[in-house]
Amino acid sequence: MEQIKLIEVKEDILADNDKKAAEIRAGLAKKGLMMLNLMASPGAGKTSFIIRTINVLHPGTRIGVMEADIDSMVDAEKVAETGAFAIQLKTGGFCHLDATMVETGLNEMPVENLDLIIIENVGNLVCPAEFDTGAMKNIMILSVPEGDDKPLKYPLMFSVCDVLIVNKTDMTHLTDFNMDLLTQRVRRLNPKIEIFPLSCRTGEGVDQWTEWLKNLLKI
Amino acid sequence: MEQIKLIEVKEDILADNDKKAAEIRAGLAKKGLMMLNLMASPGAGKTSFIIRTINVLHPGTRIGVMEADIDSMVDAEKVAETGAFAIQLKTGGFCHLDATMVETGLNEMPVENLDLIIIENVGNLVCPAEFDTGAMKNIMILSVPEGDDKPLKYPLMFSVCDVLIVNKTDMTHLTDFNMDLLTQRVRRLNPKIEIFPLSCRTGEGVDQWTEWLKNLLKI
Repeated sequence: MEQIKLIEVKEDILADNDKKAAEIRAGLAKKGLMMLNLMASPGAGKTSFIIRTINVLHPGTRIGVMEADIDSMVDAEKVAETGAFAIQLKTGGFCHLDATMVETGLNEMPVENLDLIIIENVGNLVCPAEFDTGAMKNIMILSVPEGDDKPLKYPLMFSVCDVLIVNKTDMTHLTDFNMDLLTQRVRRLNPKIEIFPLSCRTGEGVDQWTEWLKNLLKI
Repeated sequence: MEQIKLIEVKEDILADNDKKAAEIRAGLAKKGLMMLNLMASPGAGKTSFIIRTINVLHPGTRIGVMEADIDSMVDAEKVAETGAFAIQLKTGGFCHLDATMVETGLNEMPVENLDLIIIENVGNLVCPAEFDTGAMKNIMILSVPEGDDKPLKYPLMFSVCDVLIVNKTDMTHLTDFNMDLLTQRVRRLNPKIEIFPLSCRTGEGVDQWTEWLKNLLKI
């Protein structure tokens, strides 16, 4: 009984959320702004990846970062050190961002003075995949130590993303991670996804990703 | 408006769940069975940890494993190779196990012939922390590559656990992970938690954990 009740509420919420997300996306497009939604497990390297990206594009591209966290400010503080604009959304226990929370965040950002907004979603491979944030592109990070079997276990996340970053490639020799096997498993779910293996620690492979992003931003 | 509706439903569900979990726990205790609920991020090493544990205790201790996964059988297949009894619960998109799902699983297990049941919860540091499964002890795994800042970001998970396993210690030299800092952060949230650093890959530190578990099982 409880399950059925939960699902009905969830469906209402998802339909409302999709509508709100479409409005956000249209509003940003009108202003010429690009917004990316970055999702990953806890500790896959979302913040390090954002900082690597900012270091390549800033200040030529004006970047704002919306950090979502259940209960801390640490990520926004790290991002602000790069010179990019950062805000922290505390989700207060919520396990994902929805379009309404993103709208609240956008209202606090100087959007007229930005070219690119990056949302760092809550660290979670399940719930964030279900909620459209209004971003133009969904990006996910899988880190090598997590294993190459994750597409079998979290198929929705791999299906809804436009780009897969495979981070921590410098740790591969300490694992049985198989990049070819991962690629096969991901492409079976999502044939069009772009895949960039890289290491935010060493910097290896970061250029391929930032070239792709520059192309997207037409710079 | 949607937020308020969601929270009310969630509170009803949590209250119902707590009641059901208490019933499960009492029923298992009456049978002399121990049940552990294992939680972690995707890829922290839950299945490897369970297999390491089984390899020490099996067949003297009769072990059953309940694997929760959104959409795959890979973990149950790996566990079954050890000779332990394994079932796979497909959560069909749900991001956590609740007591009703655990009860469904228990009804499919030969509980009269088991001494220890290990639940491998869905890979997620957020939602599973809110739902009592009926287990006697909550165990979480944090893996070194995830970083020592996770207690700041997922405080509820660190607060509800009796044991913290710090896995993948063999990767420490490739990270800036600080075990002392982690311990401080964890103990601030949960002064009584037991902490076992180990590597499921090399086996280092596994004995300390299994000694603790044997003590719990009075064997």
